[in-house]
Amino acid sequence: MTSSPLKIAIAGLGTVGGGTVELLTEQADLLAGRAGRRLEIVAASALERPAGLALDGVQFYTDARVLAREAEYDVLVELIGGASGVALDVVRAALERGKSVVTANKAMIAHHGVELARLAEQTGANIGFEASVGGGIPIIKSLREGLAGNHVTTVMGILNGTCNFILSTMQDTGRDFADVLAEAQALGYAEADPTFDIDGIDTAHKLAILASLAFAMPVSIDAVTCEGIRHVSALDIRYAQELGYRIKLLGVASITSEKAVECRVYPAMVPLSFPLAHVEGPFNAIVTEGDFVGRTVLEGRGAGARPTASAVVADLMDLATGRVGPTFGVPVDRLEPRPAASRGTGRSAWYIRLMVKDEPGVFADIAAALRDEKVSMEQIIQRGRAPNQTVPVVMTVHETDEAAMLRAVARINGLSSVAEPPRLIRIEKL
Amino acid sequence: MTSSPLKIAIAGLGTVGGGTVELLTEQADLLAGRAGRRLEIVAASALERPAGLALDGVQFYTDARVLAREAEYDVLVELIGGASGVALDVVRAALERGKSVVTANKAMIAHHGVELARLAEQTGANIGFEASVGGGIPIIKSLREGLAGNHVTTVMGILNGTCNFILSTMQDTGRDFADVLAEAQALGYAEADPTFDIDGIDTAHKLAILASLAFAMPVSIDAVTCEGIRHVSALDIRYAQELGYRIKLLGVASITSEKAVECRVYPAMVPLSFPLAHVEGPFNAIVTEGDFVGRTVLEGRGAGARPTASAVVADLMDLATGRVGPTFGVPVDRLEPRPAASRGTGRSAWYIRLMVKDEPGVFADIAAALRDEKVSMEQIIQRGRAPNQTVPVVMTVHETDEAAMLRAVARINGLSSVAEPPRLIRIEKL
Repeated sequence: MTSSPLKIAIAGLGTVGGGTVELLTEQADLLAGRAGRRLEIVAASALERPAGLALDGVQFYTDARVLAREAEYDVLVELIGGASGVALDVVRAALERGKSVVTANKAMIAHHGVELARLAEQTGANIGFEASVGGGIPIIKSLREGLAGNHVTTVMGILNGTCNFILSTMQDTGRDFADVLAEAQALGYAEADPTFDIDGIDTAHKLAILASLAFAMPVSIDAVTCEGIRHVSALDIRYAQELGYRIKLLGVASITSEKAVECRVYPAMVPLSFPLAHVEGPFNAIVTEGDFVGRTVLEGRGAGARPTASAVVADLMDLATGRVGPTFGVPVDRLEPRPAASRGTGRSAWYIRLMVKDEPGVFADIAAALRDEKVSMEQIIQRGRAPNQTVPVVMTVHETDEAAMLRAVARINGLSSVAEPPRLIRIEKL
Repeated sequence: MTSSPLKIAIAGLGTVGGGTVELLTEQADLLAGRAGRRLEIVAASALERPAGLALDGVQFYTDARVLAREAEYDVLVELIGGASGVALDVVRAALERGKSVVTANKAMIAHHGVELARLAEQTGANIGFEASVGGGIPIIKSLREGLAGNHVTTVMGILNGTCNFILSTMQDTGRDFADVLAEAQALGYAEADPTFDIDGIDTAHKLAILASLAFAMPVSIDAVTCEGIRHVSALDIRYAQELGYRIKLLGVASITSEKAVECRVYPAMVPLSFPLAHVEGPFNAIVTEGDFVGRTVLEGRGAGARPTASAVVADLMDLATGRVGPTFGVPVDRLEPRPAASRGTGRSAWYIRLMVKDEPGVFADIAAALRDEKVSMEQIIQRGRAPNQTVPVVMTVHETDEAAMLRAVARINGLSSVAEPPRLIRIEKL
């Protein structure tokens, strides 16, 4: 072991920071054997020095900015989180010094990835962000290197463990969203403020990163349309099951026939044969379609201290062994911006749930609205009778233009017998 | 684009060779954009110059050995196949010249990987073999780099598309092995001599390679015990389905509690909830268990011109961009040999099918044989009565010592009422 150690500074000693310290400590010999040099934590920062972490001999800072600017390290591991603020400051400070950065921060990469990549190129530093998407799944490396010979046409995934846990639990127990969310919060699976997760923002950040790598375009969070899972009801989950589907929060990025990019986050119904249908609870999975490789599916734990630490350390090992390259696979100047697909131009099959007054003629009006927009029905479920009460009517329709579908639904929503805004869920097939 | 092109010599222009030429030609601009330099085919060899391949300006050889020794190239792509013979000669010749090698040849890597890796280290060359396992799935890169922070405890997979196609088709159609094999041969999914595939040898080669990467040990085909699918009957597939299992040919490598390595290829029954249960037809999938990352599953097309070319080119892109390292993740001298687990020491649940004469007292003898070896029954299926004829009796037993199980089965096989050797299939759970 003649090479000098890789000197690591860790900014942020929360869950993932703690897991990373654990991994680097417990597996120190394994890593040194594989890298041909030791991976050594030389400095760390947190607001308070955490008890129970093996940080002997590590220079400790309470101000991450000071750590970034002043400590002696080769690579800064940013595990503070947040799109900007301290996290962004310390990453910029490290890169400006020509020091490489490893981060799990999807919000920062989604919002500032291009700027940071450019800065890294200027100073000769590298940025690793394997841990920002899909926890321990080596999806960043696979897209950037393993599938580098392909034009990727679609990348989609279940990217948020909190949402997947909530939807899985709703499905298994029949309980409603608010109830399961409260349990997830009590168990620590969901944050006290769950907005980022359940409104799909976290998934949108991750999808923007995947799209950038898949399509060699500048990462852009603005290109992502985003719908979360707040309005997914136990009723819809029950109907989905009856129709042979599961409801999953998906992030889907694809190249349209006009070479535009469509990036959407939305709860989708997927058939049981869909490669993501059986991904449950805290697991994440990503499907990629490439023109030579065909379909690949990568699945694993999407979050948590140990899986995320595994991804952080994979990046550190790449840095330790010199397996490095441009942040997004190609230099920033060769990333090609692509137009966003215009809204309402896509085609999709749909699930529609209406709450209608059970009175004569209702269905004729609904059917006419669909027919006039050339929307073709596939299945209809209406059960029992409850004259003059409100009852659910559920339909699935064949693949149809989104704009036509939305017009038909607007007209249905205007019917006096329709008691609530129609509930629309896209049906995703591959 | 200031860097010089990567000069590629391709030895072997069969299915995968043709796919590789196609990819390098069709995606030349994409690859150049990503690598920052062009990937250029400068020489190729085949017994005859194939029609229909874009090989203008490419130096053509009919003798691959001459190509390897004399052509001007940076990297030789070996797509001839076979554990030794011409393939091994050309790879050695390239490495001796200090030229890197990319290969899809699992047999050669399984048998001669250590020797070749050592030679590459001596001459400063690199060896890429992503295409040798799992077709287009980036499993080699994932094990070597993406999961480098983990002690891997298990790696297992469905690694042979021919066997998986045959088993899937038997399952879907109820037809018997010989019949489906003949169809697979007619369709070109199975070779005229299918031994390598259906006797599990191809899977064993791939498993030996995965085990080497997962456990940082010298690749050793001798450590793999191997059982193929010839004797899997339509009857067993039907019972498996009835019991809630699928039969899959698995390669399983794991570290035992004594730090030995157990590498086995065998047809296994897996429950429907098993991560590999739904991998059908030509798809391959690999499950890895790491101490930090937990379980990951990678799935994709396991063979074919285009997926395999995708993997070949991924290795070429790594070479083009200097993302290189030791063949098996660490230098040969740091690969640690591990003892093979002794036979019969493992524990497993089992499926047992007996063909017995339907006469009084038969079952008591069978049950006694199991009881005396402390093998505990889980389910039993025996249907109808056919006095004095031969009927199937099917059982599953709980996890038990393999040695005890084999003793019980030997005793059962000796019973006069047992008409055929008992059929044993391991039940794999995770």
